[in-house]
This record gives sequence, structure tokens and C-alpha cells, in this order.
Amino acid sequence: MKKLLTAFVLFSSLYTYGQGKQNQSLIQYVKPIIGTQKMGHTFPGATVPFGAVQLSPDTDTIPYEKDGKYNKDVYRYCAGYQYDDPTIVGFSHTHFSGTGHSDLGDFLIMPSAGKLQLNPGTADHPENGYRSAFSHKNEVAEANYYKVKLDDQQILAELTTSTRTGFHQYTFPASDEAHIILDLMAGIYNYEDKVVWTHVRVENDSLVTGYRQTNGWAKNRTVYFAMSFSKPFKEYGTKDYSKGQVYKGFWRKFDQSKNFPEIAGKQLRMYFNFNTTDKEKIKIKFALSPVSTKNALENMQAEIPHWDFNKVKEEGQQQWEKELSKIKIKAAGTEEMINFYTAMYHAAIMPTVYMDVNGEYKGLDQNVHQAEGFVNYTSFSLWDTYRAFHPYLNIVNPSRNADMVQSMLAHYDQSAQKMLPIWSHYANDNWCMSGYHSVSVIADAIIKGTFKGDAAKALEACVTTARTRSYEGIGYYIDMGYIPQDKNGTSVSSTLEYAYDDWCIAQVANKLKRTDLYNEFIKRAENWKNVYDPSIGYMRPRMTDGTFRKEFDVLKTDGQGFIEGNTWNYSLYVPQDPDKMIEMMGGKKKFAVHLDSLFSMHLPDEFFAETEDITREGIIGNYVHGNEPSHHVAYLYNRTGQPWKTQEKVRMILKKQYHTGPDGLGGNDDCGQMSAWYIFSSLGFYPVAPASDQYWLGSPAVYSASIQLENGKIFKVEAKNQSDKNVYVQKVTLNGSLLDRLYISHHEITEGGTLVYTMGPKPKVEGTKL
Amino acid sequence: MKKLLTAFVLFSSLYTYGQGKQNQSLIQYVKPIIGTQKMGHTFPGATVPFGAVQLSPDTDTIPYEKDGKYNKDVYRYCAGYQYDDPTIVGFSHTHFSGTGHSDLGDFLIMPSAGKLQLNPGTADHPENGYRSAFSHKNEVAEANYYKVKLDDQQILAELTTSTRTGFHQYTFPASDEAHIILDLMAGIYNYEDKVVWTHVRVENDSLVTGYRQTNGWAKNRTVYFAMSFSKPFKEYGTKDYSKGQVYKGFWRKFDQSKNFPEIAGKQLRMYFNFNTTDKEKIKIKFALSPVSTKNALENMQAEIPHWDFNKVKEEGQQQWEKELSKIKIKAAGTEEMINFYTAMYHAAIMPTVYMDVNGEYKGLDQNVHQAEGFVNYTSFSLWDTYRAFHPYLNIVNPSRNADMVQSMLAHYDQSAQKMLPIWSHYANDNWCMSGYHSVSVIADAIIKGTFKGDAAKALEACVTTARTRSYEGIGYYIDMGYIPQDKNGTSVSSTLEYAYDDWCIAQVANKLKRTDLYNEFIKRAENWKNVYDPSIGYMRPRMTDGTFRKEFDVLKTDGQGFIEGNTWNYSLYVPQDPDKMIEMMGGKKKFAVHLDSLFSMHLPDEFFAETEDITREGIIGNYVHGNEPSHHVAYLYNRTGQPWKTQEKVRMILKKQYHTGPDGLGGNDDCGQMSAWYIFSSLGFYPVAPASDQYWLGSPAVYSASIQLENGKIFKVEAKNQSDKNVYVQKVTLNGSLLDRLYISHHEITEGGTLVYTMGPKPKVEGTKL
Repeated sequence: MKKLLTAFVLFSSLYTYGQGKQNQSLIQYVKPIIGTQKMGHTFPGATVPFGAVQLSPDTDTIPYEKDGKYNKDVYRYCAGYQYDDPTIVGFSHTHFSGTGHSDLGDFLIMPSAGKLQLNPGTADHPENGYRSAFSHKNEVAEANYYKVKLDDQQILAELTTSTRTGFHQYTFPASDEAHIILDLMAGIYNYEDKVVWTHVRVENDSLVTGYRQTNGWAKNRTVYFAMSFSKPFKEYGTKDYSKGQVYKGFWRKFDQSKNFPEIAGKQLRMYFNFNTTDKEKIKIKFALSPVSTKNALENMQAEIPHWDFNKVKEEGQQQWEKELSKIKIKAAGTEEMINFYTAMYHAAIMPTVYMDVNGEYKGLDQNVHQAEGFVNYTSFSLWDTYRAFHPYLNIVNPSRNADMVQSMLAHYDQSAQKMLPIWSHYANDNWCMSGYHSVSVIADAIIKGTFKGDAAKALEACVTTARTRSYEGIGYYIDMGYIPQDKNGTSVSSTLEYAYDDWCIAQVANKLKRTDLYNEFIKRAENWKNVYDPSIGYMRPRMTDGTFRKEFDVLKTDGQGFIEGNTWNYSLYVPQDPDKMIEMMGGKKKFAVHLDSLFSMHLPDEFFAETEDITREGIIGNYVHGNEPSHHVAYLYNRTGQPWKTQEKVRMILKKQYHTGPDGLGGNDDCGQMSAWYIFSSLGFYPVAPASDQYWLGSPAVYSASIQLENGKIFKVEAKNQSDKNVYVQKVTLNGSLLDRLYISHHEITEGGTLVYTMGPKPKVEGTKL
Repeated sequence: MKKLLTAFVLFSSLYTYGQGKQNQSLIQYVKPIIGTQKMGHTFPGATVPFGAVQLSPDTDTIPYEKDGKYNKDVYRYCAGYQYDDPTIVGFSHTHFSGTGHSDLGDFLIMPSAGKLQLNPGTADHPENGYRSAFSHKNEVAEANYYKVKLDDQQILAELTTSTRTGFHQYTFPASDEAHIILDLMAGIYNYEDKVVWTHVRVENDSLVTGYRQTNGWAKNRTVYFAMSFSKPFKEYGTKDYSKGQVYKGFWRKFDQSKNFPEIAGKQLRMYFNFNTTDKEKIKIKFALSPVSTKNALENMQAEIPHWDFNKVKEEGQQQWEKELSKIKIKAAGTEEMINFYTAMYHAAIMPTVYMDVNGEYKGLDQNVHQAEGFVNYTSFSLWDTYRAFHPYLNIVNPSRNADMVQSMLAHYDQSAQKMLPIWSHYANDNWCMSGYHSVSVIADAIIKGTFKGDAAKALEACVTTARTRSYEGIGYYIDMGYIPQDKNGTSVSSTLEYAYDDWCIAQVANKLKRTDLYNEFIKRAENWKNVYDPSIGYMRPRMTDGTFRKEFDVLKTDGQGFIEGNTWNYSLYVPQDPDKMIEMMGGKKKFAVHLDSLFSMHLPDEFFAETEDITREGIIGNYVHGNEPSHHVAYLYNRTGQPWKTQEKVRMILKKQYHTGPDGLGGNDDCGQMSAWYIFSSLGFYPVAPASDQYWLGSPAVYSASIQLENGKIFKVEAKNQSDKNVYVQKVTLNGSLLDRLYISHHEITEGGTLVYTMGPKPKVEGTKL
């Protein structure tokens, strides 16, 4: 790992940026390679902040099914790239960042020279297909720039992007058999029938347009493209790998395999042939649109009206620099800088822009909509991101977060189910995970004053969603106060999450003086109590008849009423009322001991196997940082009179769970949530209950930080006497006054000011009242 | 047949129309049932002139394949309805009129009562499915109105339409199990994978929207719909008949089979349940769009903002009355009136409007376009319709024809192949049949002055199309002056048709003073000579080496270098230079004898079997009226000095080939071409060579006709002393002056005037100079 890191630093130092202000550059600390090994599920390729295009290498394209059954290996390729793989199949334009299920991988392009091979080949024998071996020593991954030498082909591949356009630059050897392959069958979480339809038009000798509809995690997802070559191809062709279209009719008049400009079908691969001189660069601009090929072309022309690769790279890197500059930190060393700014990088990839330059996007109702007064975003992994990611945006990117909220409300308007998004991408909801956490994001924005638009309408959307009786046990939840386990397999986690979400709705109702709704939802917010079994001191599945289910294992996850978390972790999930929870679980003292056990106990392998999405390193004792339900847990010590334990645990998690190597993330980054946890906790505070305006104090890991707010003000954090050993907070002042509480409020941040922690090597509780 | 006719007349007399002006009504003579038996391939259902919706009963839904092979029976169901069938499967919204291959049959609706059955059942056992037995005695088919009693269901079904909206009215018995079934798998020329994708949204308890993409004759055709019920359904559901979607994921949270509002997949059937009182009417408005569900709904709201079935029916019938009133005839009897006005009806169904009320349509490039200044049309069966149908429109509907030409030019603009349409429907070209006859239609419009727009651009489109070397032998044709049979199986018919089309281009080039192009194409127009074998006196396939192919049968069609016509028929196809053809075939006398043989010889069954699309009654001797290549042949006698033979043959064909029964058409109506032949020939003239301005004289079958021209003028035809025996023209005057030629010019029609034929029982050539 250390060795690799050296390689990165070396590459960094070679890096020249913008006007040459190398010393001021923050993007030098961005290592997109972090999280690409094992469970991080990040991608190393190029993208701009929240860009619609994520142009990145895919090291394998594993089928979703094997022998008619789910193929477990597919999971490793959520982002298309696994660090340990020896070959690259090609470069595709869409990738999720850090998800635990996947889709996308649209429009895979691969350059090759020599004999044309249209099949990808295998990792063992890349020479039998168009894929190529590669080596990490010939690989550079920066923010918005990726470079790799393709060993088999002796082609240098470089990638960069603008918001909606991928830019490829391939340096070829001399060849009269140079090819660009466009694999329209390839994809992530792929299977034979996933591609519903593909339509391609060769408009002229250097422009290709088309679209592809897939039926995957998103049931019905269509992506349109325009592909422009810097040099005319001398010939092109298509191979149809499907069993064929039943009706061929008079299309037989044409030889559709070669130089035929209108290609449509289900399983297609295309090639474009060139003659190249030595070191000749063939460049490709590849623009996407959710609406039409016309819009894709318009996006390309608006964003990149030239062929200057470096200009696009630099403009994108300037966007990243601007994004990262919103928080300027000083920290102990390069590792900390890399961890912090790579976290900021990973927390600015998703959700992605889902709108053309002309403002059009496809809605859930399959119609084309015009985004009026907001940027439309997609890919909301809300079960993850409501916790810290969206609250993080509310501080550093409130306008963008407001647009994301508008996007969610547009989703609601277009939803046949009349629901806010659960896990939405590309004009679809895939309904992944539990809760209806859009309401948390919306409530957080309304409570913190970053919401734009009609709050009453937003409240209505939240309420309607929360009253959708047919959705995952909500009917039972409303009628009985909990979801019976005999009716729904994730009855406890859903009950707990609904209760928190309902509390969020109540906060908004209160703010908007809708007493009726406040009363309804503040009552529902207490439903967590209905699944708490005082006889064992844990949340526990309950049956329709009111009894708790007899068979129960507090370490087990599967079949116990939870999703991605056993009751040890999930029982702590009452962010809306931790004091009452602590009281019910035996009071502060007993609860603190209970927390101590969580972090120190050993989770046997048989149970670890059930924690999804994480490596063994992703857990500490039985505390599962790699999954989200425990993200607030370390902060709960604050309410037990032992805040120093929050401080030490937070610092321990920061150290243990985040590294600078490719395997630097112990679990899926989850679309920025893991990274947002890192950013908040490094700064010394964390939003335990979004939709409250409080951030609970932890232990800052930086020396200092300066947060540039959108309103022009600056909020500073200083950690005096900071070191790896001095993790305990001795004193906190806000704008010079001693802080007599363990939280700060959102308005205290947005008003600007300075929060000073004085650190020490031993716990000190005096001076903090709570 | 007679008996049936009586039934029709009875229904007609019961018919009350508009303001009750029954006597003046022409639509009383429209019998949509004509051509629904055997080979006519017309449909009996409701449509308005050139309407986008053709709402009509389907009597069976035969699969395209049977045991993995083409199912010959599917051909009988080109229009969905076969008169002899005992059951109706349902009512679908799109139908071709008189084609010889098919597609469409979108969105089949069927009412039922009692136990819900989602499968269609079989003709033998309709009780095992949702289909129903019916009887022609309980059936009424009028222009824009269709009514039938569904015997099994005891439901009265009534259908009418506006341009883009179908209107269903079902009168139910009392039932607490009344259903409306929406079969999204059904279709014409259907097979398992034809439906690529279906997406449906239940917007509320009486509105459903969605779309369906099919891969059939049109490779990639999507139709969007909005479906509104007059009464809320009490519940609804979906059954997915596909092998299922691989990824189901969190969609399992929902019961998608019942009352679930977002339905997507490949093989779906839906039902909507109601309680009905006795004789309760449930009405459905079903609007289509080529663009979006939003546009479909807008179409519905713009066209039918109410629930008054009779109003829609009457408005549509008024449109028909207006259309038919463009030619007012007097004729011998009701049969002649029915034949004539049903021909006018059938010549006003296709092409169909392909554009939403807001002007949007989907183009060949898959993008949404706005039709600027014209109505966009689709479904151009040009190999058929360039002959007489479009010339007919140039007289009675020149503005509409100009819009159709604009639609063809828009098609060209959007074509990846840079070609004008060959056989286009729904933003696709299916490339059916030979030639590039768009150029004939465009040239005819330019020569006759009905063309609107940029003629130079139109010429460019024609020239580019004619120079597409990769298309069906054009490269050989250009290089060698003919298509070698060893390169292309329809080498002779294509060579002949290209030569005629090239002559059309030359006419335009001449008019636009493009001498370069004139010279190029007038030379190409002589290429027909290259496939004429003087040693046998027939057109004959020629090989790459210049020799005529040895194996050749003048009666055979298959494998002889022709499509839908043997050399007996096709050798006569030189409309651009009949005099030269006659000369080469031995001169006038010999040629006339040759023609006599054509009409009098016997075509043995083995060869008849190869003439597609027609019944045995569709031929006269070896003259195949049921197919198009011979449509001008009877008029060729005019150039042999024996015009009386044209006269008697035309009258014979009118009598023999057109009847008032369901089997009244001896071959496919071919989208109005057969009907346009009837109309022209009945009026006494015919456009032998579209793109010339001449109409050759035949023998009028009407007593008189008054053609209302768009410019406000009237052109009258009178046939004095007219009778079944008096088929010979004794004298012709135009505006009182003796006509000394056997043709009239287009401008003589458009200037208004009176053409008077004096008829007699015996040939008389004196007074006609040619």
C-alpha cells in the first residue's frame, strides 16, 4: 500500500494544473483510485462535480446471471472497475459511485489495432478479444483525468469530461488496422435481455448518434448519445449478436453489416476503422442526453465546441478545484489531506445532472419536461445519503441541494405511485432499501432554510408518500403502530426508519403551522417504541397478534426483521429521540456500557457474512461502519455524560475506516455518504438527526478548517493542540465564547464565525454542561 | 351476395345523418365492408379521412410464425378482419387499408361480462376466452361508425373516431363483473418478440396512459396513448405473460398484479372492472400520439372534450360527406353509386395523419420534430399509390397531396440512408417493393403545379435517392444500364421502374432548367431498352456478362427477375415512352394483337399461384388487375389506333373487378390505388404516366360527374347516351369544342370546364385523330 501511495504522490508532483499554481492546488490530494479495491465500489475514471458523464475503465463485464442464477461476482463490479484485475475491457460513460447494487456502464468504447476482434475476450486471455492487459504503473487517475497504457494494443488511452460529454483521446501506433469499438451490449449488472433496444445512426463519416434502452435495476432506462470522431473513419460495421429479428423483410435489400448507416436491434457491437500514423491521436467526444440524440448533439456542441483535450481536462479540474476549495483544511500530513479531499471528491459525484443544456429531461411519466428554475438531478441513494451527505450539501452547496430537493419534488409530481423517490435513477425508481428518506432531505432543507419553492407543496408530497398504505407495510404501520414481521421481512428497520421520517414531517408541519399534520406525525414518530422489547433491551420483530417473535438472534441480520444491520446496530436507531431511547434501554450509564460492548465485542464470521457491502475491516467489534444505520452511533455517548468516548471513537473510526490506498474504504462509499461522514467527523461535528438544526460535537481531526459559505461568509474550525494522541476535547469556544453544550446550530455556521476546540490527551468533561 | 347487399341498403335507409338531409347524403353509399372478404384487406371499422386512428374489429390475431416458420394464414389478416370469421377478438386502433403485408393492430380493447378471462380464446371456442361470436346481421359498418352485437357477452359495441382519437361505446347488461380488457400483446403480423416494450400508467381511476414499441414490419415503431373512461373503474389489474424480467429487486415490495399504477414489460394484458346496470353504457376515448403520452392526452382533449358519442360520429361523417362531395356523380344505379363512393372512401384512408394537434411528430431520426406549415403524413405504399392515387389527390385534394410530398421530403431529411421513402410507416421505412416512386409523386406535383416548397431541394432529394448505389442494384443500374439478374432477383422490374422514375426526375430537371440533371436522367430513362430481348419480344433478365438469362418462362413470376408480375405484364411497363415500346415490340398492329392475347389467354393455376395478393377473379386472362404493374395497360390500345379496345377493356374491368359485396375487391385495395383506378376510369380518363400532365381517355362509366376543385372551379364530365352497352366513345368535346386527341391535360381540368363524351354501342374512331 505504501508503495502504491508513493506512486500516486509521484504522479501528483508531475501534475501541472491551470495557471501553474501547483502549490495552491487541492485536486492534487484527490485520489480517485481510493475505494476501487474490494468493497469501496468507486470508479477511477473522469467526471466533473455531479457530472452526467462518468467516463471510466471497466475491468470486467460480469453477467448478472450464471447458469440461470444470480452471479455473486457481479456485485464486485458495481462501478465497473476492480483494482486487482489485470485487464481493461473498455471505457464506458456512466458509473455509480460506491453503490451496493448497480446498473449503467453505458456505451463501452475500446480502441484496438491489428486484427479486428469484436468480442471482449477473457481476463485470462485478453489477446482473444478486444480487451487489453494493463498495469497500475502505467495508470494515472486524477479528478477529471484518467490515463492508462493498454499493453496488448500499445495504445495510450486518456479520458476527461465536461458535464454531459466524455472526451476520449487514444494515441495509436502506426497501423492500417486501427479500430474504435463501440460495444452496445456491454453494461454493468448485465444479462442477456437487459438491453431492450438499441438504435444507432451513422450521420456522416465522423458523427454517430443513437440510444439504448435497458431493463435492469432501472426498469426502463433510455440513454441517448452523440459520438463525434476527430478524424473520419474509413469504414465501419455492425455485428448483431441477438438471435435475430423475426421479420427481416425487405431490409435484406441491404448489407447491414458494413457501412450501413441505420442500425437497430438488441445485441449490437460496432467498429470504426482508421489508418493511423505513429503516435497519431484519435479523439472522440461522446455526449449523453436523457431526452434525444438531438439534445445529445446540442450538449456536445454547447460544452465542447473544439478538439482541445487539455482544455476540457483543465476546465473540469478547475471545477473540481472550486468545489474542493469550499473547505480549506490544514492537517497533520499528506495522508490526511488525501483522505479529506478525496472524501470531498467522492461527496461531489452523485447525484448527477439529469438535464440537457436546453433544460429538458425525461420524467418518471416518460414525458419530456423542462426544468424551470432548477437543475434536475438523478441517482438518489436516499437510504444512505439523507444521513450526512445532504446535510453536508446544505452547508457547502445549499443551492445545489435545493435543486436536488426540487428534483425529488418533480419526481413526486411525475410518479404514478404518488411517492417521493426511494432510490431513483434515470427517470425510474428502483425502490431499493427501506424508509422514505426523501422526507428527511426535504425537511432538513426546510428547517435549515435552504429550501427553495413551495414548502406547503413539499409537505404535501412528504405526507402523501408517508401515507402510501400499499408500500412496504405502511398500511400496517399506520393501523398498528408497527409493521408485523409476519407481513414484512424488514419489519423492524422499516418501523424505525418510518418513525424517524415521520418526525421529520412533524418538524416541517410545525414550522408551517399545520397542527393537524404535526399531531399526526409526531405521534407516528413514537412508533419505534412499539418494536422495542424491554425484556431483552433490543428492538425486536413483532407479530400481528402483538407478541414479539420468539425466534430471534441479536447478532444475526437475515430474517430477523432488519436490512443491512442486526439489532445490536439497529436498536440504536432513534435519532429523533435518543434520550428517550437511552432511558428505555436502562439509562445513561447502562447505555454507555452497552455502546462500549458494541465497539469491543467480536462479531463471529457467520454473522459478519450477513453484513452486506463491507470488508472485515469495515467493522469495529460489532459496530458496522461500512453500513449506514450506525453512522450516528459514536455520537450517542454525548447523551450519556461521556462525550470523551464519542471523541475517541470518532477519531478511531476516522483512522481505521479511511485510508489512502485503493482499498481505503472499508465498505461501499454509498454515493458520498461514507465520505460525508468523514468530512463532518474530521471537522468535529455531525448531523445526528437531519431535520433538526443541530450538529453534535465530536473530535476534529484537522488542525483547522475554513468553510466558504455560499452567502459569502466563512465558518472556521480550529483544533488547538491537535495530534493523534490529543483526541479529547478540553474546551470549545464559538466566536470566542465558551460553548456550554455539545452541539452547534446550523445558523451558527451560516452566520459565519469561528469554532475553536482545545484538544488534549485525556478526557475532560468540565466546561461542557451536557 | 345480393342478400347481403339488401341488408346494407336496409341499414343505410335507417341511417339518419347530420341535419337529416338524408337524400343528399353521399356517405350512404359508403360500404366499408367491401373488400373485407378474401383479398381486399380493407377494414370495416371507423375512421375519418386520413385519420391517425382506424378503430376496427379484429376477427383473429394470427401469429406471424407457426412452428418457427412463416405462417401463411397471417396474410389474410393484414387488416385484422376477415368477413367469414365467426368471432371478434376485440377492437384495435390502427389498421392498414388494403395492404399485402402488415403491422399495427395496436391496443386491442374488448368488453366482457362475467368471469374475467384474459386470454383471447379460439375461434372454435370463443367461450374459453374474451373473444365473442358475432353475426353480420347484427353488424353495421358506415363511414366513421361501426356497430356490432357481441353474442357471447351480450354487449353492444359501437365505435367512432376523430382524427387521433378512437371513441368506444359499450352497452352492457347488468353485471357486477363487467370488464374492459386492454390487450397489449395483441397485434397484426404478431409474434412473440414483436412487442419490444410496453409502459402503462394508471393516472387515476379513469385515465390510463402508456406506449408500446414494436419490432415488426416497421423495425422500431412506438405508439403512445391516453385512454379515458366515462366511468371510474372499481379496480384494475395486469398480467405479465412474458418469461419475466431478470431483475425484480425491490419491485417485489409491490403486488404489481392488482391496482398497481406503473406497469412495464413486454407481454402484458390489463383489465378494468366495473359494476353495470342493465343497458349501461361505458365509453372509452382512446387517443394516439407518435410522440408522447402527454401529446396523446392533449390530442384527446383538443379533439373530443366531451362524452357525446353521436356528436363525434356525426362530425366524422360530416368530414366524410365533405370529402365525398368533391366528386358528385350520376350513375346507372345504387351499385354504381356504392362502388364509386366506396372507392372514394377507400382512397381517403391512407396515408394517415402522423402528427399531434400541437404539430409534433417523431421523425425517422427518432427525434421529435415540429411540422412547420404542413400536416405530416405516414404510411406511404408508394409502389402502389404513385400510379393513380396521388394523381387523383392532385385533382381533388392537391393541398393534402402537397403536404404528403412535404412529409416525404421531411422523411428524406431525417433518413440515415439519405433516401426518399420507399414504403414508410410510423417513422420507419420497411423498404417494401421496388423502385423509388416517391420521385414520381414529387415530380407529378411539381409538373402539375400542386407542389409547395423548394422545388430545387425536392429535385436534389430525388437525385440523391436515385444515386444511392447501395440500394437494390442501383450501382449496377448506373454503371451498366440495367441490373444483372445474377446480382439481384428482381432485376427486370427494378430496371423498368427505375427507368420510369428517372424519366420523372428528368421532367423536373427540365422544368427547373437543370440541363445537367435532365441529360443524366433522360438517358437513364431509356434503360428499359437494355432488358428488352427483341428475339422473344419480352423484357427478360440479363446477366452481368450482357447475355440474357437462358432459363426463362414468360408466364412465371418467381425467380424470373420480376416482383408481382410476370413478363407478360411487366413488358408493357414503359409509361414514359409507350410509342417506342410499341415500336420495339413490333409496331401498333402486332402490339394490339399482343394486348388482345393478354386479356384473352388463360393463365394456368401453377402460375396464378405466384401472383400475390389477388383472387382468381382478380385476373382477366393473364391481365392481373389485382396487382398494380398493369394498371395502365388497358389504356395502351389508345396508342395502337384502336382506342375502342381501351374503352371496352376499361368498362369490362370496372364491371368485373369491383362489386358491392364484402368480396367486392379482387385484390388488395393497396392503400387506395385500386380504388383510385376505379374513380379515374369511371370518370373516363387515367394518368398513364404520372409526372406528365396528361390523362388518357378511356370510357366513362358514370352518367355525369362534377369535380369540385380546390380553386373554386368545377370540372364536369358528361357521358351522353351512356349505358352498359354503349361503352364506345363516339365523340368528345371539351368546353364545347371537339377534342382531337385521346388525352386531356391537367390544366384543362384545373381551369374548370366540361368534358362531354358521346357514347355509342359500336366503336367509332372518326373524330379522334390519334
